[in-house]
Parts: sequence; structure tokens; C-alpha cells
Amino acid sequence: MITAVDVIRTKRDGGELSTAQIDWVIDAYTKGAVADEQMSALAMAIFLNGAKPREIADWTAAMIRSGITLDLSSVGKPCVDKHSTGGVGDKITLPLAPLVAVFDVAVPQLSGRGLGHTGGTLDKLESIPGFDVDMTEAAVVQQLRENGAVICAATGDLAPADKKLYALRDTTSTVESIPLIASSIMSKKIAEGADAIVLDVKVGSGAFMKDFAQAKELAETMVRLGRDHDVDTRALLTDMSIPLGRTAGNALEVRESVEVLAGGGPADVVELTVALAREMLAAAGKSDADPAAALRDGRAMDKWRKMITAQGGDVDAPLPVAKHTEEVVAEADGYVSEMDAYAVGVAAWRLGAGRERQGQPVQFGAGIEILKTVGEQVKAGEPVYRLHTDTPERIDAAKETLKDQWKIGAEPAKRGPIVLDRLA
Amino acid sequence: MITAVDVIRTKRDGGELSTAQIDWVIDAYTKGAVADEQMSALAMAIFLNGAKPREIADWTAAMIRSGITLDLSSVGKPCVDKHSTGGVGDKITLPLAPLVAVFDVAVPQLSGRGLGHTGGTLDKLESIPGFDVDMTEAAVVQQLRENGAVICAATGDLAPADKKLYALRDTTSTVESIPLIASSIMSKKIAEGADAIVLDVKVGSGAFMKDFAQAKELAETMVRLGRDHDVDTRALLTDMSIPLGRTAGNALEVRESVEVLAGGGPADVVELTVALAREMLAAAGKSDADPAAALRDGRAMDKWRKMITAQGGDVDAPLPVAKHTEEVVAEADGYVSEMDAYAVGVAAWRLGAGRERQGQPVQFGAGIEILKTVGEQVKAGEPVYRLHTDTPERIDAAKETLKDQWKIGAEPAKRGPIVLDRLA
Repeated sequence: MITAVDVIRTKRDGGELSTAQIDWVIDAYTKGAVADEQMSALAMAIFLNGAKPREIADWTAAMIRSGITLDLSSVGKPCVDKHSTGGVGDKITLPLAPLVAVFDVAVPQLSGRGLGHTGGTLDKLESIPGFDVDMTEAAVVQQLRENGAVICAATGDLAPADKKLYALRDTTSTVESIPLIASSIMSKKIAEGADAIVLDVKVGSGAFMKDFAQAKELAETMVRLGRDHDVDTRALLTDMSIPLGRTAGNALEVRESVEVLAGGGPADVVELTVALAREMLAAAGKSDADPAAALRDGRAMDKWRKMITAQGGDVDAPLPVAKHTEEVVAEADGYVSEMDAYAVGVAAWRLGAGRERQGQPVQFGAGIEILKTVGEQVKAGEPVYRLHTDTPERIDAAKETLKDQWKIGAEPAKRGPIVLDRLA
Repeated sequence: MITAVDVIRTKRDGGELSTAQIDWVIDAYTKGAVADEQMSALAMAIFLNGAKPREIADWTAAMIRSGITLDLSSVGKPCVDKHSTGGVGDKITLPLAPLVAVFDVAVPQLSGRGLGHTGGTLDKLESIPGFDVDMTEAAVVQQLRENGAVICAATGDLAPADKKLYALRDTTSTVESIPLIASSIMSKKIAEGADAIVLDVKVGSGAFMKDFAQAKELAETMVRLGRDHDVDTRALLTDMSIPLGRTAGNALEVRESVEVLAGGGPADVVELTVALAREMLAAAGKSDADPAAALRDGRAMDKWRKMITAQGGDVDAPLPVAKHTEEVVAEADGYVSEMDAYAVGVAAWRLGAGRERQGQPVQFGAGIEILKTVGEQVKAGEPVYRLHTDTPERIDAAKETLKDQWKIGAEPAKRGPIVLDRLA
């Protein structure tokens, strides 16, 4: 007979969990027969003692089986999913989903809300007046068939074991574990039923994985899990040492995404959007497609407008604006040489763009505009950041967070490449 | 600001918790502001990454402060406490408390119930008809003043943080950790307010600590914690590779204890009772006392009868007897050469002497009589064990547990010493 105490003890003592133990513990946890305090002890033992590829594969399969798997066979075109491990200013999903849909590829983006210093895609989209993130499976299939792009809330029926465990890990300091991150992401993504998955694995101060070797191990683990389930899985490792683009915050990031869809926007956001689009299109058998052209010629913007409208959003309504703004200025002449992504994320979160606990509301207008980014020249007294918030009493905490986390140097620093590596 | 997530992360990453972090987390856990799943993740991180002497001292002090400390100053004689880390057939507290009380030393024994393979002192005493283990602080002080010996339930007001954590560790496989065991035992014992504490630290298959080095580390850790709090603390390391005495089970062990109090009983039980009594008497400044004589001449029995009567027990009533007995016989001639303590404990537990979950009743008559112990000659077909239970369907499970866990050899094996080491 398998018991929670024995399963925990096995992993605690450095042993390997059997397939039967993993199946049992995930099923019992989903049903409530294994208690939260038992699962958190097991998660900490996995965090500290690791897990073998076979255990991670079994754990992922058990989490997929804890719920339903979407059936996208009636969509009638290739379905390609994308997932980012999360970063500061990472609004890429917003322009990317309609951009790929231009080429008759379906992009189901079942997303989550933000917790901590990285924003949530749903929070960003909900800053568009009227936009509805709650959709039935039938409505998702229909929109994929008709328009190609959907960005909505993941239903609790997909990998419910992961849903419970994800919330638990957040409060028990068991987040940054490769076996737990990889199985969490891939169980949800595989349950979404796409034919292919493209992963954007972030590396740097603003990401879970601070160094390249760890990020690569995470990417390799996830690619292997996808292929175990016959899903064409590819990954890009991308830089998250400085924020992506010039905004961090919900409505601020929607505005920047619309600029990209209009053929403009910050170069790094455009570069990464196009690179990920190429991977997704290649996975769908469309290596010849030219996504950069579809940004320039308005086709991606058309898809975006259709997607927002289909989900109830008023695409022409003004976006929410924070009640209060304040600028942070440079104290010396020179060039911005550093800008810590994590600090910018935490500052935006403190201004009201994020939440401390699940279920809290966010301020749609809150966040940070980066007026001068790495490599740009600045004069003493010139503004570098613009802070946005409805609660001005939070300005000081945000400033304190940013202090000493960006630097001005005498020479123009050059930003390194966005895409650091590719696994395919 | 201290948060549970930060405290867990510090220990998870191999760091040292500050005094402020420990004070905060114990206080918040006692009040329910730190959740069980957070404390269990922290306990697993302590289990796997250890704790420094300073952290263990702070943890113990914080658990003491989570509740009240008994004031025994009005007892009017030296108060000496005893604690055993738990073993199979360990009924020593029963003869020991009245024996030491003979010499005008107060012995407050605030005990717990059994869980798992080692029996609980309270469960044993409750097999005496009428015996009441629930006493107020005032009644404890009065009985210590008048009679000298008390064995009763520990009140929830003593170290409540430990009470919560102890139950949690049991279900989350975080029991066998020296920092957690030492702080749990010593916080309760120090809160009981005695002038001195004598520890019986068990070593061997029937104990938490299977090897000598671990047991010695545990003993040293506890002795240091006692001395930090100005409590004269001593320890004996004693053998628990085979069961103590010839019985494991509640009423069976009371009967054996009464034999010892009557001047008879198994040699090992007498030897350990006298050795611990000498330590307790020395700690009370009475090194000249002769406890062996007090067992022989009936003074210890008188104290026992007074103690049982004072707590409502009918000292002359027959003890409960199991409805069903069955003997396990030797298959060959020879000498009993091995008898695994852990197997005997588990078999007794399966027969009904112990409980699987807190709050379950136990069978007072259930357990095991050892008819032939290590070193004794036996002939094929002669009984070695007698199993007692009210639920005969459990006999097979008990037999299965004992199978291959005792051996018959050609030469008489000699049992090693009971007392392996002494820390004073």
C-alpha cells in the first residue's frame, strides 16, 4: 500500500519515486486525500534532492491525467502554442498570437494571471475595456477556426493537480525547481492539445533562471517532455537581464504591443516577436512565411482587432491611465549602462501593476515607462523613468527599489543579443 | 519585514536563520498566521539542510515561549524530570517515578500517547481501571508535594508550538531530524519547570536513532539545550536493538512494571530503572541513595500504590486481558540469537496495542509476550512469543511482521550492555 509518508520519505532520503508512487500521490493530492502540508514537504524534498528524467516524465503525465485534454482536431488547421517562463515587460504574446494567425495557423493561448514581479497576460488584456478572458472550450475552438488567435483564461479542468500545486509552491518557497517548473508548464501546455509548442525560456535577473546553464537545463527538460507526448517542442533561450521593451505594467504594455502591431515599437520587442513567430510557423510547416512583413503591412493588426472584438473588447476605446505620474531623473551626464530587470519588475509591482496575493485586483494604469534604456545617452536632470500609479504613496517604495539598480557610464554600452540559444 | 516565504527560502538555500526569523516563525505558526504547508516545507528544509547549535537553541527557546512554564517552586523538594526518546517495551517510567520519589525527590512525568511502533506511557497507565491522566497544574503541584510522583497528560498550554509541529512532522516524514527532535523534547521538558532532567536516549533498530553516533549527537544537543536554560541535564545512551523486558503492550507492560516494583521482573528492566534512578538522585544531590534496595524492600511499591490511588486508579483491580492469544513456536532447537526490537514494536502495534492516527482508541490487553529472549535456549515446537489481541484477524499480520526478524543459533548469544554511554 502506498502512503504519503512513504512517498515523502523516499524522496527525502534521495531515492527515486516509482511510477506507481507518482501516479498515486498526484491523484490523491487532486482529490484532497494527500494534504497540502504533505505535498509541500514532498515539493521541498524534490527541490533539494532533485528528480530523474523518468520521474519528471511520470509526474508530468500524472498531472495531465488529473484533468481533461482539449480536443482541437476540429479547428482544421495546425495549432501551435507558445509559452514564456516569464519576464519583466514580456508582452510578446499580445502581438505574437495575431501575427502567427495571419498565416492560417491556430494559436490557442490559455494564460494565467500575474503573481510577483512578472506581469500576467490576462491582466494586461483586461485593461482593454470590455475584454473577456473567460471562454468555454467550444468558444475557443470556434474562434480558433474563424480567427486563429485566442488569448483567454486556462480552465481549471486542465491539469487541476498543477493548479493546486502551483498555488502551494508560491507560498512555500518551492518555485525555482527545474523538475517542478518543467512539469508544471508542460502538463498545462500538453493538456491544451496543440500540435506544437514553442517555449521562450528567459535567462537573467528578471527571470526565474538567473544563469544560462540552469535555463538551458530547464529548456532541455521541457523539450524532452513535449516530445515524450508526441508534441513538436522547440525552445529559444532569450535574454531577461534588462526589461523587454520600454514598458512594464498592464495598459502600458498593451499600448506598446499595439505600436508593434502597427509596424513600430521597440526593436527588441519586434525582434523577439518575429523570432518566436518564425519558430511557430516552422513548427506548422510554414518556414517560408514572412512575419516581419505582416507586422509592417497591417495584416497582424487586422488579426489583433478581430481577436479583441471577438472577445468583447472595445479596440478603439482609450486605455486606462494612472492618476499620478512622476519622473526619475539622471544625476549625471553619460550613457545608461545597466538597468536591472528584476528591480524594474518589483518597482512596477509595488506601483500597483501586480498583486501580492491571488485574487487581489491590479491597477490597469500602473507601471513604469523606461524613457532611456541601456545604450542611450542622457544628461543630468533628464528623466530616465516615468512611474505611473493610482496610489502616489507607493512612489517612494518604487523609487527605493530602482535606486542603484541602473547605472550611467561614460561610454555607450551595447546591449547583447536577445536570442541566446535555440533548441529544436 | 519577515515573511514565511523568506524564512523558508533562507533555510532551503542552506543559510542560517536569524533569531528574529525563528522567533517570528514560531510565534506566527502558533497563532495560525504561518500555515501548516509552510511549516512543513520549512521542516523538510531543516531536515535536509540541518541547523546550527545557535539556531536549535533559538528554536527551542521560541517554542518554550509559545506557552506557559510550570512553576514548581512551591513543591518544596528537588524536582527531577526524565525523558526517553522511545523504544519497544520501554515501561521504565512506571517503576522509575515512584522509585525516585521514595527519596523525597519530586518526579513530574508529563507524558504523551503512543503513535507508531513505540507505546505511550499514558496508554499503558490508562489500562489500570479508573486511572485519570488529566490533571490541573495545581493538582500536579499538590501531588508532587504530598507523594512525589505524578504521571499525567502534558497540558496543551506547555509549548503549544511544539504540539502543533509534532503532529505535523508525523504526517510529513520530518520526524527523524536531530534539530527537530532535540528542540521538541527539550522545549516541553524545560517548560515543565524541573530543576534537572535525565534523558534516556535509545540506540538501535527499535529507536528513532539507529546508530550510536547519531544518538550521541542527539544526546549532546539536548544536554546543551538544557544547560542553556540552567537545567542540570544528563543523558544515558541505552540499547534498543532488542525490546526492553519481556512485554510490549499496555496492560502487559503495567504487569511487568509491577513485578519490578515487587522486587522481581526482567533483569534488563531492573538494571535500566536503577541506572536512571541513580542519575536522577545524583542530580537531586542524593548520590548516596540506594534505589535497588527500595525496589527490594517494598518502599517503591508503596509509592506506586499511592500514586495510582491519588490519580483515581484501582490498584487491586485486575488488568484488562485480550480476548485471544496465540503462540509462535521455534522451528529448530538452539538459542535465540536475534530479536529485532522494531519488528516486535510493529507487531504489537498491529495487534492493537498502538494507533494509526491520533485520537484512535487502543486495545489495553493487546501486545506481545516474549517467552524466550536473546541468549535463552529453546527446543523445536516450544513457544517463543505469545500474541495477545481482541481482533484475531490481526494475528497473521503480526506473525508476518515477526517472521525472519528473530533467529535461532547453535551457540548461546550474549546480550550486550544496556547502558552504552553516559553524558553528565
